[in-house]
Amino acid sequence: MKQNILAEITYDGTLFYGWQRQKADIPTVQEILEEALFKLFGQPIKTYASGRTDRGVHACRQVVNFFIPRSFPLVNIKKALNSFLPAAVKIIKVKKAGYDFHARFSAHNKTYRYIILNSARPDVFWRNYAWFIPQKLDVAGMAEAAQILKGERDFSSFVKGASRKDCRRKVYNVKVKKRGRFVYIDIEANGFLYGMARAMVRALVDVGQRKLSLLGLRKAIAARQRKFIGKDAPACGLYLMKVDYNG
Amino acid sequence: MKQNILAEITYDGTLFYGWQRQKADIPTVQEILEEALFKLFGQPIKTYASGRTDRGVHACRQVVNFFIPRSFPLVNIKKALNSFLPAAVKIIKVKKAGYDFHARFSAHNKTYRYIILNSARPDVFWRNYAWFIPQKLDVAGMAEAAQILKGERDFSSFVKGASRKDCRRKVYNVKVKKRGRFVYIDIEANGFLYGMARAMVRALVDVGQRKLSLLGLRKAIAARQRKFIGKDAPACGLYLMKVDYNG
Repeated sequence: MKQNILAEITYDGTLFYGWQRQKADIPTVQEILEEALFKLFGQPIKTYASGRTDRGVHACRQVVNFFIPRSFPLVNIKKALNSFLPAAVKIIKVKKAGYDFHARFSAHNKTYRYIILNSARPDVFWRNYAWFIPQKLDVAGMAEAAQILKGERDFSSFVKGASRKDCRRKVYNVKVKKRGRFVYIDIEANGFLYGMARAMVRALVDVGQRKLSLLGLRKAIAARQRKFIGKDAPACGLYLMKVDYNG
Repeated sequence: MKQNILAEITYDGTLFYGWQRQKADIPTVQEILEEALFKLFGQPIKTYASGRTDRGVHACRQVVNFFIPRSFPLVNIKKALNSFLPAAVKIIKVKKAGYDFHARFSAHNKTYRYIILNSARPDVFWRNYAWFIPQKLDVAGMAEAAQILKGERDFSSFVKGASRKDCRRKVYNVKVKKRGRFVYIDIEANGFLYGMARAMVRALVDVGQRKLSLLGLRKAIAARQRKFIGKDAPACGLYLMKVDYNG
Protein backbone atom coordinates (compact mmCIF):
# COMPACT_ATOMS: atom_id res chain seq x y z
CA MET A 1 0.00 0.00 0.00
CA LYS A 2 1.15 3.50 -0.74
CA GLN A 3 2.63 5.52 2.10
CA ASN A 4 1.65 9.15 2.56
CA ILE A 5 4.68 11.29 3.36
CA LEU A 6 4.73 14.75 4.91
CA ALA A 7 7.78 16.82 3.99
CA GLU A 8 8.82 20.19 5.33
CA ILE A 9 10.71 22.10 2.69
CA THR A 10 12.46 25.46 2.45
CA TYR A 11 13.18 27.40 -0.70
CA ASP A 12 14.61 30.65 -1.93
CA GLY A 13 11.82 31.81 -4.25
CA THR A 14 13.98 34.28 -6.19
CA LEU A 15 14.49 32.19 -9.29
CA PHE A 16 11.20 30.28 -9.24
CA TYR A 17 7.86 31.12 -10.79
CA GLY A 18 6.18 30.19 -7.54
CA TRP A 19 5.28 26.83 -6.09
CA GLN A 20 2.79 25.61 -8.62
CA ARG A 21 3.82 23.67 -11.70
CA GLN A 22 3.45 25.67 -14.94
CA LYS A 23 3.91 24.90 -18.60
CA ALA A 24 7.24 23.46 -19.65
CA ASP A 25 10.44 25.45 -19.22
CA ILE A 26 9.13 27.66 -16.43
CA PRO A 27 10.95 26.69 -13.25
CA THR A 28 8.66 26.07 -10.29
CA VAL A 29 9.34 24.50 -6.94
CA GLN A 30 6.72 21.81 -7.47
CA GLU A 31 8.28 20.74 -10.75
CA ILE A 32 11.77 20.62 -9.24
CA LEU A 33 10.53 18.55 -6.31
CA GLU A 34 8.52 16.18 -8.48
CA GLU A 35 11.57 15.69 -10.71
CA ALA A 36 13.61 14.71 -7.67
CA LEU A 37 10.86 12.28 -6.62
CA PHE A 38 10.81 10.81 -10.11
CA LYS A 39 14.56 10.23 -9.95
CA LEU A 40 14.23 8.52 -6.60
CA PHE A 41 11.19 6.32 -7.27
CA GLY A 42 11.30 5.95 -11.05
CA GLN A 43 7.68 6.97 -11.50
CA PRO A 44 5.68 10.21 -11.47
CA ILE A 45 4.64 11.27 -7.96
CA LYS A 46 2.31 14.19 -7.46
CA THR A 47 2.95 16.63 -4.60
CA TYR A 48 0.46 18.72 -2.65
CA ALA A 49 1.56 21.87 -0.82
CA SER A 50 -0.16 23.71 2.03
CA GLY A 51 -0.76 26.46 -0.49
CA ARG A 52 0.77 28.08 -3.52
CA THR A 53 3.42 30.65 -3.08
CA ASP A 54 3.71 33.28 -5.82
CA ARG A 55 6.71 33.95 -8.01
CA GLY A 56 9.56 35.32 -5.88
CA VAL A 57 7.96 34.39 -2.54
CA HIS A 58 10.17 32.38 -0.17
CA ALA A 59 9.50 29.55 2.23
CA CYS A 60 11.33 28.91 5.48
CA ARG A 61 8.97 26.02 6.10
CA GLN A 62 6.43 24.94 3.51
CA VAL A 63 4.58 21.67 4.07
CA VAL A 64 4.04 19.22 1.25
CA ASN A 65 2.65 15.70 1.07
CA PHE A 66 2.98 12.94 -1.51
CA PHE A 67 2.40 9.20 -1.74
CA ILE A 68 5.37 6.93 -2.25
CA PRO A 69 4.81 3.63 -4.00
CA ARG A 70 6.68 1.45 -1.53
CA SER A 71 8.11 1.62 1.93
CA PHE A 72 11.43 3.40 2.06
CA PRO A 73 13.59 4.50 5.04
CA LEU A 74 12.59 8.08 5.85
CA VAL A 75 16.15 9.28 6.43
CA ASN A 76 17.09 8.03 2.97
CA ILE A 77 14.18 9.87 1.35
CA LYS A 78 15.42 13.15 2.81
CA LYS A 79 19.06 12.49 1.89
CA ALA A 80 18.30 11.30 -1.62
CA LEU A 81 15.89 14.10 -2.42
CA ASN A 82 18.31 16.71 -1.11
CA SER A 83 21.06 15.29 -3.29
CA PHE A 84 18.81 15.68 -6.36
CA LEU A 85 17.44 19.11 -5.44
CA PRO A 86 19.26 22.34 -6.34
CA ALA A 87 20.81 24.39 -3.51
CA ALA A 88 17.83 26.77 -3.53
CA VAL A 89 15.39 24.05 -2.41
CA LYS A 90 15.98 21.77 0.55
CA ILE A 91 13.99 19.20 2.48
CA ILE A 92 14.13 19.96 6.20
CA LYS A 93 12.25 16.92 7.45
CA VAL A 94 10.14 14.00 6.25
CA LYS A 95 7.76 11.90 8.25
CA LYS A 96 4.99 9.41 7.74
CA ALA A 97 1.49 10.85 7.60
CA GLY A 98 -1.93 9.25 7.86
CA TYR A 99 -3.51 8.24 4.57
CA ASP A 100 -6.03 11.09 4.87
CA PHE A 101 -3.50 13.80 5.54
CA HIS A 102 -3.51 16.54 2.90
CA ALA A 103 -1.03 19.40 3.22
CA ARG A 104 -3.62 21.95 2.11
CA PHE A 105 -6.96 20.67 3.38
CA SER A 106 -5.61 19.53 6.74
CA ALA A 107 -3.87 22.86 7.43
CA HIS A 108 -5.16 24.57 10.53
CA ASN A 109 -3.34 27.85 10.34
CA LYS A 110 -0.41 29.47 8.64
CA THR A 111 2.12 32.14 9.47
CA TYR A 112 3.76 34.46 6.97
CA ARG A 113 6.56 36.89 7.69
CA TYR A 114 7.17 39.98 5.64
CA ILE A 115 10.56 41.73 5.79
CA ILE A 116 11.01 45.42 5.01
CA LEU A 117 14.48 46.92 4.76
CA ASN A 118 13.79 50.38 6.13
CA SER A 119 17.03 52.31 5.83
CA ALA A 120 18.26 55.22 3.78
CA ARG A 121 20.71 53.04 1.88
CA PRO A 122 19.80 50.01 -0.24
CA ASP A 123 21.59 46.75 0.54
CA VAL A 124 22.62 44.70 -2.48
CA PHE A 125 22.52 41.50 -0.41
CA TRP A 126 18.87 42.01 0.53
CA ARG A 127 17.57 43.05 -2.88
CA ASN A 128 15.73 39.74 -3.41
CA TYR A 129 14.89 39.18 0.27
CA ALA A 130 13.15 42.32 1.54
CA TRP A 131 11.12 45.30 0.35
CA PHE A 132 13.45 48.27 0.38
CA ILE A 133 11.69 51.39 1.71
CA PRO A 134 14.12 54.27 2.27
CA GLN A 135 11.53 56.66 3.80
CA LYS A 136 11.05 56.47 7.55
CA LEU A 137 8.00 54.41 8.52
CA ASP A 138 5.65 55.18 11.40
CA VAL A 139 6.07 51.74 12.96
CA ALA A 140 3.87 52.59 15.97
CA GLY A 141 1.06 53.53 13.58
CA MET A 142 1.57 50.29 11.67
CA ALA A 143 1.34 48.32 14.92
CA GLU A 144 -1.98 50.04 15.70
CA ALA A 145 -3.25 49.28 12.20
CA ALA A 146 -2.19 45.66 12.68
CA GLN A 147 -4.70 45.36 15.53
CA ILE A 148 -7.47 46.44 13.15
CA LEU A 149 -6.59 43.61 10.75
CA LYS A 150 -7.07 40.96 13.43
CA GLY A 151 -10.28 39.03 13.83
CA GLU A 152 -12.67 36.86 11.88
CA ARG A 153 -14.37 38.55 8.96
CA ASP A 154 -14.76 38.81 5.22
CA PHE A 155 -11.37 39.79 3.78
CA SER A 156 -12.55 40.49 0.21
CA SER A 157 -10.75 43.84 0.33
CA PHE A 158 -7.46 41.93 0.34
CA VAL A 159 -8.13 39.43 -2.46
CA LYS A 160 -6.26 39.66 -5.71
CA GLY A 161 -8.65 39.44 -8.66
CA ALA A 162 -12.35 38.69 -8.39
CA SER A 163 -13.25 35.83 -6.08
CA ARG A 164 -16.70 34.36 -5.77
CA LYS A 165 -15.58 32.05 -3.01
CA ASP A 166 -16.17 32.54 0.67
CA CYS A 167 -13.74 35.22 1.79
CA ARG A 168 -14.26 34.78 5.49
CA ARG A 169 -10.99 34.11 7.31
CA LYS A 170 -9.78 34.33 10.87
CA VAL A 171 -6.65 36.40 11.42
CA TYR A 172 -5.22 35.40 14.79
CA ASN A 173 -2.33 37.75 14.97
CA VAL A 174 -0.59 40.54 13.11
CA LYS A 175 2.66 41.72 14.69
CA VAL A 176 4.79 44.61 13.53
CA LYS A 177 8.23 45.06 15.00
CA LYS A 178 11.31 47.07 14.19
CA ARG A 179 14.71 45.40 14.60
CA GLY A 180 17.61 47.56 13.52
CA ARG A 181 17.26 48.38 9.84
CA PHE A 182 14.37 45.95 9.41
CA VAL A 183 10.65 45.97 10.02
CA TYR A 184 9.06 42.52 10.38
CA ILE A 185 5.36 41.90 9.88
CA ASP A 186 4.14 38.48 11.07
CA ILE A 187 0.65 37.44 10.08
CA GLU A 188 -1.03 34.32 11.41
CA ALA A 189 -4.41 33.23 10.05
CA ASN A 190 -6.48 30.11 9.57
CA GLY A 191 -6.10 30.67 5.85
CA PHE A 192 -4.94 33.25 3.34
CA LEU A 193 -6.89 34.39 0.29
CA TYR A 194 -4.99 34.87 -2.94
CA GLY A 195 -2.73 37.91 -2.49
CA MET A 196 -4.02 38.55 1.03
CA ALA A 197 -0.69 38.66 2.89
CA ARG A 198 0.90 41.09 0.46
CA ALA A 199 -2.22 43.31 0.33
CA MET A 200 -2.25 43.47 4.14
CA VAL A 201 1.43 44.42 4.17
CA ARG A 202 0.72 47.09 1.60
CA ALA A 203 -2.08 48.53 3.73
CA LEU A 204 0.21 48.58 6.78
CA VAL A 205 2.99 50.28 4.83
CA ASP A 206 0.49 52.84 3.54
CA VAL A 207 -0.37 53.56 7.16
CA GLY A 208 3.35 53.71 8.00
CA GLN A 209 3.85 56.25 5.23
CA ARG A 210 0.76 58.22 6.33
CA LYS A 211 -0.99 57.59 3.04
CA LEU A 212 -3.78 55.70 4.78
CA SER A 213 -5.37 56.54 8.13
CA LEU A 214 -6.66 54.03 10.65
CA LEU A 215 -10.18 55.17 9.79
CA GLY A 216 -9.37 54.76 6.10
CA LEU A 217 -8.20 51.22 6.79
CA ARG A 218 -11.42 50.39 8.65
CA LYS A 219 -13.44 51.73 5.73
CA ALA A 220 -11.33 49.82 3.22
CA ILE A 221 -11.96 46.58 5.13
CA ALA A 222 -15.69 47.26 5.39
CA ALA A 223 -15.94 48.04 1.67
CA ARG A 224 -15.06 44.44 0.75
CA GLN A 225 -13.54 45.65 -2.49
CA ARG A 226 -9.87 45.37 -3.38
CA LYS A 227 -9.68 48.82 -4.96
CA PHE A 228 -9.37 50.64 -1.63
CA ILE A 229 -6.04 48.96 -0.86
CA GLY A 230 -2.93 49.87 -2.88
CA LYS A 231 -0.92 47.54 -5.09
CA ASP A 232 0.61 44.41 -3.62
CA ALA A 233 3.75 44.63 -1.56
CA PRO A 234 6.61 43.05 -3.59
CA ALA A 235 6.88 39.27 -3.49
CA CYS A 236 10.55 39.22 -2.46
CA GLY A 237 9.81 40.29 1.12
CA LEU A 238 7.35 37.47 1.84
CA TYR A 239 8.24 34.22 3.63
CA LEU A 240 5.97 31.31 4.46
CA MET A 241 7.13 30.54 8.00
CA LYS A 242 4.93 27.85 9.43
CA VAL A 243 1.91 25.67 8.73
CA ASP A 244 0.09 24.19 11.68
CA TYR A 245 -1.97 21.00 11.71
CA ASN A 246 -4.16 19.49 14.35
CA GLY A 247 -2.19 16.85 16.17
CA MET B 1 40.97 69.51 -16.36
CA LYS B 2 39.82 66.06 -15.55
CA GLN B 3 38.59 65.39 -12.02
CA ASN B 4 39.65 62.25 -10.19
CA ILE B 5 36.69 60.65 -8.37
CA LEU B 6 36.83 58.12 -5.54
CA ALA B 7 33.75 55.91 -5.33
CA GLU B 8 32.85 53.39 -2.64
CA ILE B 9 30.81 50.59 -4.15
CA THR B 10 29.11 47.47 -2.88
CA TYR B 11 28.17 44.43 -4.90
CA ASP B 12 26.71 40.98 -4.60
CA GLY B 13 29.32 38.95 -6.46
CA THR B 14 27.08 35.93 -7.05
CA LEU B 15 26.31 36.59 -10.68
CA PHE B 16 29.56 38.30 -11.65
CA TYR B 17 32.79 36.85 -12.98
CA GLY B 18 34.67 39.00 -10.51
CA TRP B 19 35.63 42.65 -10.62
CA GLN B 20 37.92 42.68 -13.62
CA ARG B 21 36.63 43.22 -17.15
CA GLN B 22 36.79 40.08 -19.30
CA LYS B 23 36.07 39.28 -22.90
CA ALA B 24 32.63 40.24 -24.20
CA ASP B 25 29.49 38.64 -22.76
CA ILE B 26 31.03 37.75 -19.42
CA PRO B 27 29.45 39.97 -16.78
CA THR B 28 31.96 41.68 -14.50
CA VAL B 29 31.50 44.49 -12.03
CA GLN B 30 34.03 46.69 -13.80
CA GLU B 31 32.22 46.36 -17.11
CA ILE B 32 28.84 47.15 -15.53
CA LEU B 33 30.27 50.21 -13.79
CA GLU B 34 32.07 51.46 -16.89
CA GLU B 35 28.86 51.05 -18.89
CA ALA B 36 27.02 53.21 -16.36
CA LEU B 37 29.80 55.81 -16.59
CA PHE B 38 29.57 55.73 -20.37
CA LYS B 39 25.84 56.40 -20.17
CA LEU B 40 26.40 59.33 -17.86
CA PHE B 41 29.35 60.99 -19.59
CA GLY B 42 28.94 59.83 -23.18
CA GLN B 43 32.53 58.63 -23.45
CA PRO B 44 34.58 55.66 -22.26
CA ILE B 45 35.90 56.08 -18.71
CA LYS B 46 38.30 53.58 -17.22
CA THR B 47 37.93 52.53 -13.59
CA TYR B 48 40.59 51.35 -11.14
CA ALA B 49 39.67 49.25 -8.11
CA SER B 50 41.62 48.69 -4.91
CA GLY B 51 42.06 45.13 -6.11
CA ARG B 52 40.36 42.45 -8.13
CA THR B 53 37.79 40.32 -6.47
CA ASP B 54 37.33 36.82 -7.88
CA ARG B 55 34.18 35.37 -9.37
CA GLY B 56 31.52 35.05 -6.67
CA VAL B 57 33.35 37.21 -4.11
CA HIS B 58 31.29 40.04 -2.61
CA ALA B 59 32.10 43.60 -1.63
CA CYS B 60 30.52 45.53 1.20
CA ARG B 61 32.87 48.37 0.43
CA GLN B 62 35.18 48.28 -2.56
CA VAL B 63 37.04 51.46 -3.51
CA VAL B 64 37.31 52.56 -7.12
CA ASN B 65 38.64 55.67 -8.82
CA PHE B 66 38.08 57.16 -12.26
CA PHE B 67 38.58 60.45 -14.04
CA ILE B 68 35.53 62.37 -15.21
CA PRO B 69 35.93 64.68 -18.19
CA ARG B 70 34.20 67.70 -16.67
CA SER B 71 33.02 68.99 -13.34
CA PHE B 72 29.75 67.45 -12.25
CA PRO B 73 27.86 67.70 -8.94
CA LEU B 74 28.97 64.74 -6.82
CA VAL B 75 25.47 63.95 -5.54
CA ASN B 76 24.25 63.70 -9.13
CA ILE B 77 27.06 61.30 -10.08
CA LYS B 78 25.98 58.94 -7.34
CA LYS B 79 22.28 59.18 -8.15
CA ALA B 80 22.75 58.86 -11.90
CA LEU B 81 25.15 55.92 -11.67
CA ASN B 82 22.87 54.12 -9.23
CA SER B 83 19.94 54.57 -11.59
CA PHE B 84 21.98 52.94 -14.38
CA LEU B 85 23.45 50.16 -12.25
CA PRO B 86 21.63 46.87 -11.63
CA ALA B 87 20.32 46.17 -8.11
CA ALA B 88 23.32 43.93 -7.40
CA VAL B 89 25.80 46.83 -7.65
CA LYS B 90 25.40 50.11 -5.84
CA ILE B 91 27.49 53.22 -5.28
CA ILE B 92 27.64 54.05 -1.56
CA LYS B 93 29.55 57.30 -1.78
CA VAL B 94 31.51 59.43 -4.23
CA LYS B 95 34.01 62.14 -3.43
CA LYS B 96 36.71 64.16 -5.15
CA ALA B 97 40.22 62.73 -4.93
CA GLY B 98 43.60 64.24 -5.61
CA TYR B 99 44.93 63.80 -9.12
CA ASP B 100 47.50 61.28 -7.89
CA PHE B 101 45.08 59.10 -5.97
CA HIS B 102 44.93 55.54 -7.27
CA ALA B 103 42.52 53.08 -5.62
CA ARG B 104 45.08 50.27 -5.78
CA PHE B 105 48.48 51.90 -5.42
CA SER B 106 47.37 54.32 -2.71
CA ALA B 107 45.72 51.60 -0.59
CA HIS B 108 47.30 51.26 2.82
CA ASN B 109 45.49 48.21 4.12
CA LYS B 110 42.45 46.10 3.43
CA THR B 111 40.04 44.03 5.47
CA TYR B 112 38.26 40.93 4.26
CA ARG B 113 35.55 39.05 6.12
CA TYR B 114 34.83 35.40 5.54
CA ILE B 115 31.50 33.93 6.65
CA ILE B 116 31.04 30.24 7.46
CA LEU B 117 27.58 28.82 8.10
CA ASN B 118 28.44 26.20 10.70
CA SER B 119 25.21 24.38 11.45
CA ALA B 120 23.87 20.91 10.86
CA ARG B 121 21.25 22.16 8.43
CA PRO B 122 21.95 24.05 5.20
CA ASP B 123 20.18 27.39 4.73
CA VAL B 124 18.90 28.05 1.21
CA PHE B 125 19.11 31.81 1.79
CA TRP B 126 22.82 31.67 2.58
CA ARG B 127 23.88 29.30 -0.22
CA ASN B 128 25.64 32.09 -2.16
CA TYR B 129 26.74 34.08 0.89
CA ALA B 130 28.60 31.70 3.19
CA TRP B 131 30.60 28.47 3.18
CA PHE B 132 28.32 25.79 4.59
CA ILE B 133 30.20 23.45 6.92
CA PRO B 134 27.88 21.09 8.79
CA GLN B 135 30.61 19.49 10.95
CA LYS B 136 31.36 21.15 14.26
CA LEU B 137 34.44 23.38 14.09
CA ASP B 138 37.01 23.82 16.84
CA VAL B 139 36.66 27.60 16.91
CA ALA B 140 39.08 28.01 19.83
CA GLY B 141 41.72 26.13 17.82
CA MET B 142 41.01 28.33 14.80
CA ALA B 143 41.47 31.44 16.93
CA GLU B 144 44.85 30.12 18.10
CA ALA B 145 45.86 29.39 14.52
CA ALA B 146 44.77 32.91 13.56
CA GLN B 147 47.49 34.30 15.83
CA ILE B 148 50.09 32.30 13.91
CA LEU B 149 49.00 33.91 10.64
CA LYS B 150 49.63 37.41 11.97
CA GLY B 151 52.84 39.31 11.30
CA GLU B 152 55.06 40.46 8.47
CA ARG B 153 56.56 37.71 6.37
CA ASP B 154 56.68 35.94 3.04
CA PHE B 155 53.20 34.52 2.37
CA SER B 156 54.11 32.41 -0.69
CA SER B 157 52.37 29.44 0.92
CA PHE B 158 49.05 31.22 0.38
CA VAL B 159 49.48 32.37 -3.21
CA LYS B 160 47.39 30.85 -5.96
CA GLY B 161 49.56 29.81 -8.89
CA ALA B 162 53.24 30.58 -9.22
CA SER B 163 54.29 34.09 -8.32
CA ARG B 164 57.72 35.51 -8.89
CA LYS B 165 56.78 38.76 -7.23
CA ASP B 166 57.65 39.81 -3.72
CA CYS B 167 55.32 37.84 -1.45
CA ARG B 168 56.12 39.73 1.71
CA ARG B 169 52.97 41.14 3.32
CA LYS B 170 52.05 42.39 6.75
CA VAL B 171 49.00 40.78 8.31
CA TYR B 172 47.81 43.11 11.08
CA ASN B 173 44.97 41.07 12.41
CA VAL B 174 43.14 37.78 12.00
CA LYS B 175 40.04 37.42 14.17
CA VAL B 176 37.88 34.32 14.44
CA LYS B 177 34.55 34.57 16.22
CA LYS B 178 31.45 32.46 16.53
CA ARG B 179 28.07 34.22 16.46
CA GLY B 180 25.13 31.85 16.58
CA ARG B 181 25.21 29.60 13.53
CA PHE B 182 28.02 31.59 11.93
CA VAL B 183 31.78 31.76 12.21
CA TYR B 184 33.34 35.03 11.03
CA ILE B 185 36.97 35.35 10.03
CA ASP B 186 38.23 38.92 9.65
CA ILE B 187 41.63 39.43 8.06
CA GLU B 188 43.37 42.78 7.88
CA ALA B 189 46.60 43.17 5.94
CA ASN B 190 48.60 45.79 4.09
CA GLY B 191 47.95 43.77 0.95
CA PHE B 192 46.65 40.41 -0.20
CA LEU B 193 48.39 38.11 -2.65
CA TYR B 194 46.26 36.40 -5.26
CA GLY B 195 44.07 33.84 -3.46
CA MET B 196 45.63 34.65 -0.07
CA ALA B 197 42.45 35.37 1.90
CA ARG B 198 40.71 32.17 0.79
CA ALA B 199 43.85 30.06 1.35
CA MET B 200 44.17 31.44 4.88
CA VAL B 201 40.53 30.65 5.57
CA ARG B 202 41.09 27.15 4.26
CA ALA B 203 44.04 26.67 6.58
CA LEU B 204 41.99 27.90 9.55
CA VAL B 205 39.11 25.59 8.68
CA ASP B 206 41.55 22.67 8.34
CA VAL B 207 42.67 23.47 11.88
CA GLY B 208 39.02 23.74 12.98
CA GLN B 209 38.35 20.30 11.50
CA ARG B 210 41.55 18.93 13.09
CA LYS B 211 43.04 18.11 9.70
CA LEU B 212 45.93 20.50 10.32
CA SER B 213 47.77 21.05 13.60
CA LEU B 214 49.22 24.36 14.76
CA LEU B 215 52.67 22.91 14.17
CA GLY B 216 51.58 21.80 10.70
CA LEU B 217 50.41 25.34 9.99
CA ARG B 218 53.73 26.81 11.12
CA LYS B 219 55.55 24.37 8.85
CA ALA B 220 53.25 25.13 5.93
CA ILE B 221 53.96 28.85 6.30
CA ALA B 222 57.72 28.27 6.55
CA ALA B 223 57.70 26.05 3.45
CA ARG B 224 56.70 28.98 1.22
CA GLN B 225 54.96 26.59 -1.10
CA ARG B 226 51.25 26.54 -1.74
CA LYS B 227 50.99 22.76 -1.78
CA PHE B 228 50.93 22.44 2.01
CA ILE B 229 47.66 24.33 2.26
CA GLY B 230 44.42 22.75 1.03
CA LYS B 231 42.21 23.99 -1.78
CA ASP B 232 40.75 27.49 -1.61
CA ALA B 233 37.77 28.18 0.60
CA PRO B 234 34.75 28.83 -1.67
CA ALA B 235 34.43 32.35 -3.09
CA CYS B 236 30.85 32.87 -1.91
CA GLY B 237 31.86 33.34 1.74
CA LEU B 238 34.34 36.16 1.07
CA TYR B 239 33.54 39.87 1.44
CA LEU B 240 35.83 42.83 0.85
CA MET B 241 34.90 44.98 3.85
CA LYS B 242 37.17 47.99 3.90
CA VAL B 243 40.09 49.62 2.15
CA ASP B 244 42.12 52.16 4.09
CA TYR B 245 44.14 55.03 2.67
CA ASN B 246 46.54 57.46 4.30
CA GLY B 247 44.66 60.63 5.02
